Amino acid sequence: MGLEAIQWRQRRLDILDQLVLPITTKYITISSVKEGWDAINKMQVRGAPAIAIVGCLSLATDLNATSFQSKAQLHSSVEDKLTYLVTARPTAVNMQKAADELKNVSAKLLKEGMTLEDMKDRIIKWCEQMLIDDVETNKNIGKFGANAILTNANGKVNILTHCNTGSLATAGYGTALGVIRSLHAMNKLEHVYCTETRPYNQGARLTAYELVHDSLPATLICDSMAGALMKSRSIDAVVVGADRVSRNGDTANKIGTYQLAVLASHHGVSFYICAPTTSIDFNLESGEDIPIEERPPLEMTCIGGTQIAAPGIRCWNPAFDVTPNNLITGIVTEKGVFPPAELVKCQSK
Amino acid sequence: MGLEAIQWRQRRLDILDQLVLPITTKYITISSVKEGWDAINKMQVRGAPAIAIVGCLSLATDLNATSFQSKAQLHSSVEDKLTYLVTARPTAVNMQKAADELKNVSAKLLKEGMTLEDMKDRIIKWCEQMLIDDVETNKNIGKFGANAILTNANGKVNILTHCNTGSLATAGYGTALGVIRSLHAMNKLEHVYCTETRPYNQGARLTAYELVHDSLPATLICDSMAGALMKSRSIDAVVVGADRVSRNGDTANKIGTYQLAVLASHHGVSFYICAPTTSIDFNLESGEDIPIEERPPLEMTCIGGTQIAAPGIRCWNPAFDVTPNNLITGIVTEKGVFPPAELVKCQSK
Repeated sequence: MGLEAIQWRQRRLDILDQLVLPITTKYITISSVKEGWDAINKMQVRGAPAIAIVGCLSLATDLNATSFQSKAQLHSSVEDKLTYLVTARPTAVNMQKAADELKNVSAKLLKEGMTLEDMKDRIIKWCEQMLIDDVETNKNIGKFGANAILTNANGKVNILTHCNTGSLATAGYGTALGVIRSLHAMNKLEHVYCTETRPYNQGARLTAYELVHDSLPATLICDSMAGALMKSRSIDAVVVGADRVSRNGDTANKIGTYQLAVLASHHGVSFYICAPTTSIDFNLESGEDIPIEERPPLEMTCIGGTQIAAPGIRCWNPAFDVTPNNLITGIVTEKGVFPPAELVKCQSK
Repeated sequence: MGLEAIQWRQRRLDILDQLVLPITTKYITISSVKEGWDAINKMQVRGAPAIAIVGCLSLATDLNATSFQSKAQLHSSVEDKLTYLVTARPTAVNMQKAADELKNVSAKLLKEGMTLEDMKDRIIKWCEQMLIDDVETNKNIGKFGANAILTNANGKVNILTHCNTGSLATAGYGTALGVIRSLHAMNKLEHVYCTETRPYNQGARLTAYELVHDSLPATLICDSMAGALMKSRSIDAVVVGADRVSRNGDTANKIGTYQLAVLASHHGVSFYICAPTTSIDFNLESGEDIPIEERPPLEMTCIGGTQIAAPGIRCWNPAFDVTPNNLITGIVTEKGVFPPAELVKCQSK
């Protein structure tokens, strides 16, 4: 069974406490909106889609355990609790968006001719559907990506990935890591290599954790070793996620993605971006327009309280880079795999 | 004044204690062979050439402070102390080689017609000459490398370097870092970027320390950022050291060097190997024959006692990689700069 960071069974919510990873694996039960707010606020759950889903599912479990006197009282409670959940992490836009949508759904149900219990059930099911849809999207990305890679391969494949794109960064299953999970499920994964992903070590901490958890044949490398890996061992494809894909296929993703694309091109290795269509911004003509956030030097100079760099050295710490479309073999979405030049076609699918 | 990790003034030896770098700058005085042995054994000084020089200079300061009854007694003492020094780090071949040479010198002087004081003076001067010669070699590398880079540049240049090749890895001044020091001395260095150099962080700890010490305009980057750096900022040249250069110019150096060469080639950036001719192995036809040491996973998974990777993940940790000659613009030696195809010419210079 693949890692499930968000578990929803019989209207009970358990989430993997990301604060104690990768050293400790501990699930915590969320049985109210207050506990959901705390988990999001303390960053026991992270990543925009996951925050929204945990927030909404904490509302679902809360509603399930509460008795209401009227549909109006239920609606009022839903509105208040969603407004409260948005305040847990003010920058989490997905939670804001989900809150707005669900408030509208609740307002609509209030006007429709149905019982109080039916209205409550419909709201709970709406929250459950968020989780189901997101995982379904990722499973489709996984399936399309795996098939694309296998088209040009003889037998089992070796894959390199970067950063974390798995169950710990999405609603579940993962995007690029979903492709790797799909290959493994098809018994077609020879080996997966994951980069450490400096400076925040998402590869070493999170991806490595997921690969060990799922017992995938996996090896961690430093970011500096990707070139030597491609030269000395046979790598069939590089698969990575995306923070934002522009109309022409240029892709902003975790720093280090661009040079993996250059190295893949040099070694004749396929390079796939794996992302839901919601990550594609068709209003953005090219990657040149994507602003790159620069983060504080402390992330580079300290690890776990240990100073690892010479005091006084200046640092450059861009969080992302942009990979131009000419280095990308295909963009793997839940609707299929598109070469960058044909990306606009996914709008009509 | 550039960083001097080994200071020799009026027959007094002070060395920078590398065990407390980069947080603390502390010189320790070495006034006997016993103290030299301890410093080498405790790794307060590291790097094969530096170990040999500190060992021999500890002998020089020891001899300078000791009275002998006869040339035979002096010779016997030199032999005993050199034999002892070699045991401080059994794998340090440079110390063994220097000990053998100096024993021969002493044996020859014993037979020649000179006074006891003259013989002692000649032995001390032989030790001093080791330091002078090594620094002189590096200064020539620096000069030739800087001139080669400036030939194709308009005004000041931006340089990227990897690992540590400076005063902390050599007898002083440095090889690739010597080129950077030369450019700075000529007022031609716009900016130098150094990679962190995972997994052992020699760039972040040692190179960054030297750059801050010498007040060079410098910035630290993660290994994953080199591609984005070359794409977004104008880099004129990449300069790196070498562990071993083969006859055809293929070069083994710190892991990550190879991918910097690929990235440099992709971005049209010059790529120079900087090494003394003693690092060129003319008996080695190509880099394919160079064995690559794989080091323990712990170097990757822990930093300063902090576990940074998921428990149970397998690691691949090669210490070096080999850069093929077609990616190398030139090999900078103390005799001049040679394109890989003309490297054999440096034998006749």
